Parts: sequence; structure tokens; C-alpha cells
Amino acid sequence: MTTELYRLTATEVLTKVKAGEVSIEDYASSLLKRIEARDDAVQAWAYLDPAYVIEQAKALDAIPESERGPLHGVAIAVKDVIFTKDMPTQFNSPVYTNNAPKVDAGSIMVLRQAGALILGKTTTTEFAATTVGPKTRNPHDSERTPGGSSSGSGAAVGDFQAPVGLGTQTGGSTIRPGSYNGIYAFKPTWNAITREGQKIYSLILDTLGLYARSVDDLELLADTFMVFDDVPAPKNFSVKGAKFAILKTMVWPNAGPGTSTAMDKATSLLRERGAEVEEIAFPDHLNDLPAWHATVLASEGRTAFLPEYAVAKDKISKQLVGHVENSDKISRKAQLEAFDKISAARPVVDDILGKYDAVITPSVPDEAPLGIATTGNASFCLIWTALHTPVVNVPGFKGDNGMPIGLSLVAPRYHDRRLLAVSKKVGEVFEKEGGWKSSV
Amino acid sequence: MTTELYRLTATEVLTKVKAGEVSIEDYASSLLKRIEARDDAVQAWAYLDPAYVIEQAKALDAIPESERGPLHGVAIAVKDVIFTKDMPTQFNSPVYTNNAPKVDAGSIMVLRQAGALILGKTTTTEFAATTVGPKTRNPHDSERTPGGSSSGSGAAVGDFQAPVGLGTQTGGSTIRPGSYNGIYAFKPTWNAITREGQKIYSLILDTLGLYARSVDDLELLADTFMVFDDVPAPKNFSVKGAKFAILKTMVWPNAGPGTSTAMDKATSLLRERGAEVEEIAFPDHLNDLPAWHATVLASEGRTAFLPEYAVAKDKISKQLVGHVENSDKISRKAQLEAFDKISAARPVVDDILGKYDAVITPSVPDEAPLGIATTGNASFCLIWTALHTPVVNVPGFKGDNGMPIGLSLVAPRYHDRRLLAVSKKVGEVFEKEGGWKSSV
Repeated sequence: MTTELYRLTATEVLTKVKAGEVSIEDYASSLLKRIEARDDAVQAWAYLDPAYVIEQAKALDAIPESERGPLHGVAIAVKDVIFTKDMPTQFNSPVYTNNAPKVDAGSIMVLRQAGALILGKTTTTEFAATTVGPKTRNPHDSERTPGGSSSGSGAAVGDFQAPVGLGTQTGGSTIRPGSYNGIYAFKPTWNAITREGQKIYSLILDTLGLYARSVDDLELLADTFMVFDDVPAPKNFSVKGAKFAILKTMVWPNAGPGTSTAMDKATSLLRERGAEVEEIAFPDHLNDLPAWHATVLASEGRTAFLPEYAVAKDKISKQLVGHVENSDKISRKAQLEAFDKISAARPVVDDILGKYDAVITPSVPDEAPLGIATTGNASFCLIWTALHTPVVNVPGFKGDNGMPIGLSLVAPRYHDRRLLAVSKKVGEVFEKEGGWKSSV
Repeated sequence: MTTELYRLTATEVLTKVKAGEVSIEDYASSLLKRIEARDDAVQAWAYLDPAYVIEQAKALDAIPESERGPLHGVAIAVKDVIFTKDMPTQFNSPVYTNNAPKVDAGSIMVLRQAGALILGKTTTTEFAATTVGPKTRNPHDSERTPGGSSSGSGAAVGDFQAPVGLGTQTGGSTIRPGSYNGIYAFKPTWNAITREGQKIYSLILDTLGLYARSVDDLELLADTFMVFDDVPAPKNFSVKGAKFAILKTMVWPNAGPGTSTAMDKATSLLRERGAEVEEIAFPDHLNDLPAWHATVLASEGRTAFLPEYAVAKDKISKQLVGHVENSDKISRKAQLEAFDKISAARPVVDDILGKYDAVITPSVPDEAPLGIATTGNASFCLIWTALHTPVVNVPGFKGDNGMPIGLSLVAPRYHDRRLLAVSKKVGEVFEKEGGWKSSV
């Protein structure tokens, strides 16, 4: 059914397009119909021009088969903190209303060249830097937040309005919406993918993030961005005989019943399939990682938001004014100590992670909270953002209110492809028996 | 004389403008006449529209005195790797010919808001990433390179075509042209000034750099960018009784007679004025800093130039193609080791630097070499770029061919203002008795 094309993953669409069964125009039309039907409920888009989407789709259809790229026609939702030369980029900030520089971010250049169809811009919290929710609602319960700051991309992919989406993560902005919307979310190793043309909050933390509804799609994007490990990932990773660790982290007291149950269930499911699962902990000297993250974030925000502060202090949120004015009175000494201690922690944690096929850790405290005023708690994610490690949110579990809950799989830096290969097999287990199924 | 206004420093111009002695239009006209007279010889500009400069100057003159910013009318030369919404940004790359997105870099937003007059865009090596010289010539000898990659900004400020200029530094791209052109160059602590809208080569190395012909001007810019230390800089730093160290570094074998003589002379001059000067060395375990820098640079270039590689591989230099294709076969393991070892070195070196009022180290191997095909050797600068410390090139010395040579003053991270205060007094000594005077 053409009208159901929107439900396909990117990989599935590519197969149909290659087989000549589907045109990009048909596919784009199906997505646009889905968006039209669901936009009132979800409101994932900051900018979407259906006529222009069709125009792009027709142009892609006109490309001879021999000249088509590896992402030919793959529709992509782009978080509105990433420059697109043909669409406005407004950062959910009144300072940038109607801002539309004719420039593509580095990530968009790569995706377009590979044949991707840039669908539109998705909502974000202000500059991807606050937890004040945009208009977007969780597709699985419109009374709940889709998370943030990549609210729109997470919701659009969760709601089948786009097969894949771009987010960003400085605290938990990619992984948290991944869990809340019941989809796969991938935060690659820091700087494995260019952040050119992506609004800066913290240079040492900001990371481009990717959303999809299958690991195959994440692998497709990782290929396009040439994210490669030293050693190719195993082709036939098996959960049976694999070695996992459960890591509750120093912020475990934040975990609610949903996440607690998911962690236990994940352990049981993997053990039932013949995997070894042991529980580990961070070494005590790293217990302040969340505090170091907060210090670095505020200090780098002090630099990042000076331009907007200088131009329109009254139009940026108090949190960002506070960063620029250093209202927390963070000394340069404290800033550097936090920066250096995180730096020193990275190889230490890599060594710990390297002993397992993946380390399993919470993505979020619990299912998406009620209300859209705030986008939730990033405490479990920000540790890994600081540590630069790749993280995949694997969906499959269910909270007390029937909302999705995912768990994070983590690996040492630049073991991204291995982590994706492991996540694929683990995802099959979690999606099948974790208890949550998408009903949108 | 109005025609000599171009010779003033920014601080001097501001004083005259505030006193109502000079209009911005007069000042801009004087600079434009200087540029017209000298452009054939120096060729510092990638883009300059004299009519638009005058238009901006008139608009600045029309601003009521009470609404004028702290940089009211200060003319600024901007390296063409930094976005300007009203001028093209072309990176000296055919991939970006006529590229003119309507967007200001963060640094430009801050400067414009403060009242600066953006004069034009200055030449750069390709993406500020290679050592292949642009058309620009050294103002003190047109047969010699002005250095790079901030070739045009260094030459323009050295030639009195602009009082201050913006550069960038990933290896030695700010400090080296500073030395070659006989001017002050300031590489602030990494991320003390926003790099939003500045082309990325390496996230962990790239730093905005500033040029001027006086430390007062650098302090003016540091104020504008809110670069502040924990402790305010001493108001009356005195060389007498101060404590300096001479650090020849692990790349000292690269030093030629000009730099060697300058280092000796600096030591004598400071001692004569009652300063204590001792010689120190890097600890042996940091001898591979240059190699770690090279590894990080190539690895981060692998990420940074994928967009251009994807879009137009045939239009970017072989060096950058090599980064993307990882032609040096740098493993992720080696990349991370280099990244982590540099990270671990930063606090160690801060501790060493913190024992002195400043550490004095070479800016360059020697005076600007003959020819403009290559922009010279960055080996002395790149150590400090990796270490994130502030560096000021202080001019004053002379090479065998009468060309300027500067020395670098270095301080621990986020001791930028203290370093500027020290550099001011040291600069008075070096400029007076170092042996070089500008004759342009």
C-alpha cells in the first residue's frame, strides 16, 4: 500500500526504490500525508514546506540510476539547530526569527550529497540548551513530553513522520528523546561526525545525534559519515556467549520503577539467551562526573552565548544569561579542574567498558513525564556525553503508564560500529520481549 | 593630518573619535587610501568593498554619542574563514567561490554590536588548513611570505591597512604571521572566545586569534569578548623584579640565527632591567607533544573535511583528501592516545608556567622566509595550541635580513589578562631595544 510507505525504515525504502517499486515522490507523499494527519497531535516541525519536499523528491526521481547516492531518497528530519541552506534555522530563539542563511551544515552537505531528502526542520529547546519544552508532544501520549532538546526529531521518527532524524546531545538531548519516543538513538563518539554548522553550546560536549527505528538505518548513516572503528564490527554477533555489564551509575537514586524494572528485565532476558551479565560500578574517584559536567557546561556556555547576550540579552533565557554573567561564580580554576578531570577519566572508563561487549545503563530515570513544559532529566546521559563514548538507546521496555523506556548500550570511544552491531542483536531481544510495542 | 589616521592604533582612534576630532568616515577614508596605495604590493584582501566601508562608516557616524559601543568605529580585518553576513566567505577554496551566506560568526556579532567597522575579508590558506600561501606578500619585503594561515590579517595590520585583525590558529596560524609581520598577536586560551561560525579544522585545537600593533588594543578586544581571569591583572606590572623563564622547547633544533639571537637578547634586556630570567625545559615525558599534535590534527581533519570531500573531492588539496582517507593510517587507538596525552599534559604545563610572570619561547624558527609559495614552519607554536595556553607574540627583534622577529610569551590557561599586562611591559622593552623598527 503506497499510503503505508511512511512506516518503512530507510533501509526498507532504499530496497524498494532500487527495485523500482517505489518513486521518491510516492514515498515523500506518503510521509507528508502522515505528517498532515498527525501534526495537530505531535507538532514536531519548526519548518516544513510540503511543496518543496515534493519538488526535491521529483528532482531525486529524475536522477539516473547510475548516479544515485547511497541514501537516495531517504527522508531526514533535521533539528533546527543545524544549518540548512534552503530552510530557515531559528534555534527556537526570538533572536533568530526568520533567520535563513544560505548555508548547509557539514552533516547536511554529506547527507545531501548521498542523496538524502531533507524533509524539514524539527523543534528544539532554545539553542538546544535549555529544558523548556517546545510545542511538540509525545506521539505515544500527547499529554507527555517527547523529551528534549531534540524534541521534534525524536517525536517525528517515533511517529513515523520520518524514518531518520538528526539531533544533538550536550547533556542527554539525543538519548533521552530516544527513550521517551521508543526509538533507536545513537550518540556517536565525540567528533566522529562533523559539527560544522551546528549551534555551539559546549565544544567539548556537543555531539551530533542520530535517530532511527532500526539499527540497520543507523549503520547506513554511520557508513555515510564514514564512522569506522579500527577493527570492523563482527558480522554475526551473538548474544549467546556474549559478555555484558550492568552499570547503575552514581545517579541511580534518580531511577524510577520503569527504569529499574527495565534494567532487571534486560539482565534476565540476556542471561536467558546465554549471555553473561555482571554488575559493575564506576570507580569512586569518578563520582563527581555529573558535577564536572555541570561546571564545564556552564563555563563553555559562558563563551558560547556571549554573541546573543551582546546582541539581545532580553531575548535569551535566564539560564543562558546566567552562563554569560557566570552567575554560578565558577572560577576558571574550577572550570579547568572539571575539564581536566573529565579528560583524565576518559581512558580510565574506556578500559572498563572495553572488557564487555556492551555496558548497559539507564537512558532516563523513567518513562516520559506528564506535561510538555519541561523536557525531563538528563542525569544518566550526561556522564557519557562528557566521556565521549558512543551510546545507543535501545527501545523495548514499558513504564507503569504504558510509555516506552529504552536502555543505553555503551562502548569505549571509537567502538561505534561494534556497539551498533551489538545493539542490533540486543535490540531484537528487547523489542521482542521487553514488553513495549508502538501503537501509533 | 587626516591622511595619517591609518597609522593610529584602535585605542588612539577611539580617543580621537570620543573627543570629536575625527569622524569614522574620515578614518575609514584614510584606511582605504592606505589600502589603495599598498594593495598591489601586499594583496592582503580576499574581499573589500570601499563603497560599503564608507556606507558603514557613515552609519556609525550617525549613531548618537550616548548609543555608541566600546569599539565605535574600530576597523577590523577579518580572516576569510569567519562568516560575515554582508560579505562573502570563501575559505580560499574553489568549493566555496562566491559563497555568501547571510550569517555572522559569533565573534563578528560581538564586534559589530560593540560598534566595530568590519572592513573586509583577508586572505587565508585553504580552509586555514594548509601551508600553501595565498597571493599575499609580507609588507616589509614583498619577496617574502607574511606567514599563514592568517596571511591577510597579519599583513594588513603590519602594513597599517587595519589597526586590528582576526586570525585563527590550529598550529601556528596566528602567532607565526604575528612574528613575520612585526606585530602583536594574541592566541587566547582555547574556547575563551567563541568559534561559532569559524571553519573547523580541529575542534580541540582551533582558536580565534587577534592582531594589533599595541597591547592596549588587544586588551580592548579582550574586554569586548569578556575574556577575564580569576584575578584581575596587575595594573602596574614591572619588569624589575619580575620572574621569567626561557623555554627553548623540544623543537629548538629548528631555530635559526634570528630566533636564537632574539632569545639571547630578550634574556639580556630583561635581566638588565632587573628581572630574573632562568632557563627551563619541558619534562622529558612531553617530548612527543609535536607528534601528538600532528596525530590529533590529521584525525580531526578526517572528520572536518568529509563534507568537502563528499561534495568535491577534486577541488580540495591532497593534504585534506589525505586526512579524510586517513592516508597516514592513524588508528583510532593512536588518535585517542595522542588526544589523552595532550589532555594530561595541560595541567602539568600550567603548573610549570604558573611559576613565572611569563615564559618566553620562540614564535618562529627565524624571520619570514623568501617566497610566498609556503607560509613557513609552525613547530614552535603548535605545542601551545595543543596545550590551550594563551600566547602573545611580542615583536621587536630583527633577523639577518632586517625582517621582524617576535618572541612568544606564554602563561597558564585562563591567565590571559595577566599575560597581556606582562606583554605590554615586556613589549615596551623589546620594541625599544630589540633592534627592529617598522619602516612601512
